[in-house]
Amino acid sequence: MSKLVPPHGGKGLVCCLLEGAERDAELKKAAGLKQLEISARAKGDLIMMGIGGFSPLDGFMTKADWKGVCEKFLMADGTFWPVPVTLDTDDDSIKEGDEIALVNKGEVYATMKVTEKYEMTDADKKWECEMVYKGEGEDSVDDKFWEVALEDHPGVQMVMAQGKFNLAGPVKVLSEGDYAERFPGVYLTPTQIRDEMEKRGWANVAALQLRNPMHRSHEFLAKIAIEVCDGCVIHSLIGNLKPGDIPGDVRIKCIQTLIDNYFVADNVINAGYPLDMRYAGPREGLLHATFRQNYGINNMLIGRDHAGVGDFYGLFEAQDIFDRIPYVKDACPEQGKALICKPMKIDWTFYCYKCDGMASMRTCPHTKEDRVILSGTKLRKGLSEGAEIPDHFGRDEVLVILRDYYENLTEKVEVKMQKAASGATMK
Amino acid sequence: MSKLVPPHGGKGLVCCLLEGAERDAELKKAAGLKQLEISARAKGDLIMMGIGGFSPLDGFMTKADWKGVCEKFLMADGTFWPVPVTLDTDDDSIKEGDEIALVNKGEVYATMKVTEKYEMTDADKKWECEMVYKGEGEDSVDDKFWEVALEDHPGVQMVMAQGKFNLAGPVKVLSEGDYAERFPGVYLTPTQIRDEMEKRGWANVAALQLRNPMHRSHEFLAKIAIEVCDGCVIHSLIGNLKPGDIPGDVRIKCIQTLIDNYFVADNVINAGYPLDMRYAGPREGLLHATFRQNYGINNMLIGRDHAGVGDFYGLFEAQDIFDRIPYVKDACPEQGKALICKPMKIDWTFYCYKCDGMASMRTCPHTKEDRVILSGTKLRKGLSEGAEIPDHFGRDEVLVILRDYYENLTEKVEVKMQKAASGATMK
Repeated sequence: MSKLVPPHGGKGLVCCLLEGAERDAELKKAAGLKQLEISARAKGDLIMMGIGGFSPLDGFMTKADWKGVCEKFLMADGTFWPVPVTLDTDDDSIKEGDEIALVNKGEVYATMKVTEKYEMTDADKKWECEMVYKGEGEDSVDDKFWEVALEDHPGVQMVMAQGKFNLAGPVKVLSEGDYAERFPGVYLTPTQIRDEMEKRGWANVAALQLRNPMHRSHEFLAKIAIEVCDGCVIHSLIGNLKPGDIPGDVRIKCIQTLIDNYFVADNVINAGYPLDMRYAGPREGLLHATFRQNYGINNMLIGRDHAGVGDFYGLFEAQDIFDRIPYVKDACPEQGKALICKPMKIDWTFYCYKCDGMASMRTCPHTKEDRVILSGTKLRKGLSEGAEIPDHFGRDEVLVILRDYYENLTEKVEVKMQKAASGATMK
Repeated sequence: MSKLVPPHGGKGLVCCLLEGAERDAELKKAAGLKQLEISARAKGDLIMMGIGGFSPLDGFMTKADWKGVCEKFLMADGTFWPVPVTLDTDDDSIKEGDEIALVNKGEVYATMKVTEKYEMTDADKKWECEMVYKGEGEDSVDDKFWEVALEDHPGVQMVMAQGKFNLAGPVKVLSEGDYAERFPGVYLTPTQIRDEMEKRGWANVAALQLRNPMHRSHEFLAKIAIEVCDGCVIHSLIGNLKPGDIPGDVRIKCIQTLIDNYFVADNVINAGYPLDMRYAGPREGLLHATFRQNYGINNMLIGRDHAGVGDFYGLFEAQDIFDRIPYVKDACPEQGKALICKPMKIDWTFYCYKCDGMASMRTCPHTKEDRVILSGTKLRKGLSEGAEIPDHFGRDEVLVILRDYYENLTEKVEVKMQKAASGATMK
């Protein structure tokens, strides 16, 4: 029997992906169904349902699920789930009982039996945003939330831009998109990661969530986990991010370079998962732990401002939320329906000259002046302008890749500008 | 209710220390009882029973306890215990039913009701040594055990030098010795450490066992624990060690200096416990976890060659033994009788130039040449001869204290030699 933690929800891995002849037949059928264009976020959700990453979900949420999840982290049947997984539309013609095809940019990702269609007024959406995206910590944006959220919060913007209805119902997933081709050996399903970890004899595993390039601070988190666990899965989001963020392939290359030069390869797995960022801060931290359990992971590293955006959340609100919600076994109505994957909370980390190594606010008694701390904004500026990055902040091998990326980016922009300029001249 | 782990054995803290008038009366009675001179080891065991550190023990072990502990880590009533806690004598006159006073160097440490007196033949002692002191790991001394043990194993020497009988029975402890005076604020009882940890709001706590000066490697272990727990108790043995080891007061001073300069004081406690080393390697690792549970500690840091001596044990045998013994809840006949305190296993640690900080064999992929590794022997030689210690091995502030200690030691030896020399001249 596997020593790994069981999938979330007590039903094993719920994989909605069809394969082989079954898939071919369903694709054929889908061609004759009403086509609904879905968002990139919904596409990611579908692939996760396909590969079991969102177990026990087998489709988009009903109104009762949506309400329970927003309000108390529980689906209608008592299963813990921290963020709504819903499918929106403005299409008046879709009726309950319909079967439809879910399409993104010309590719059919799933068919869906519409079991429920419910209205989502602006008030409903606002309520969802307040429940899910507005922090509850002392230092999170509260009174001014709506003043800034519509302007600056990509998660809130996404919800508020949704259609008038949500559609609920079970899905048959027909495609994993191009992740396997774009990220060979890195895009791994829960089954694949579980198999690999079992082969390595792992039982106590931590995941490091990444959506930014991996620097010494992230390396330190992974290495703390490796010291006290059997291994660490460096698990990158390879779906869509907000503009300006560094794309998945560059980040994955950085991670692999780091592993090749600074890790014991046996103790780490470099993997990616196909979701888009929701930027739901604390709630998304819970989601990260929830779906990691499906990958066989029982410890979720939660650092500073996990899954946050701007200044919306308290720096450690994504850690604190684990103490407030019914994720522990006894707090859920049925064993198996609560979250088992635990947070591994790590404080703000940095290199400290006096400590002579990596440290955190929990271990380092020294002052700001002794520490190498660099904001993401300053780092991006430094990298894109070819300026020096302070010693000990990142590994040279990684910084080379990032400089390269920014240089190409600049060149592309310059080429664009030149083209535009020459176009202007030719006019 | 306390969030700390309950004391071992399911009976709460069993403290055999009498106080106030009760103690005075018992001391008076003791003066009229037969006086048995006990070993320093037994004295330490008694103080631990006095303050609840050896809960649920309330006296020295019966033959059935001794046998069960040696053979299967279980006392006669099914309670987990990893090493015999016995009282030996050669005194033929002591009879079952006697009440006796237990004395060490003129001080009465306890009275004891002798409920059982059992013979310990040389064969019994040899069996105890083979069960308790002989490792079971692949790389522990096995075939040659008896060739080297009598010569080089202080634990085995101690057992083989014991008397012909063991005495069992409950004790009333009357003294904690001079620990409180010699180590003010550092010699802390389980109750005191629990109170302090509760005041700090700790629930998930690790202990770092120390009997040698604290260098970067030990600091690293403590800091890993601090990152993932509420705090770390740096818990030094302040009883007796083997000749040549560094005395408790010097070690405690090193630790306090380290805390003052390199730790966040709120996350660490500098404490000592009154036992002598048994040098039982893996079995002593288990004992360390067992009595730590009484101090409210639920994670026992186990590093390389924990509690080992010479080359008797495999480097990680004290980690592996936790997987072999019935310490988990379900493996003991009754809940509460099994050990709850878990091992926090950490690999061989060192400073690595390429890693640019502390690392372990689990995280560092580099070579021997990149790592600062120094044997205890070389370190002692370097310190006592005033030679340079390699960078990054220890903290300067600590090395100063140790050099000082060795210098004074050398001076003392020189004074002795001069005295001896002048004596010879005067003859």
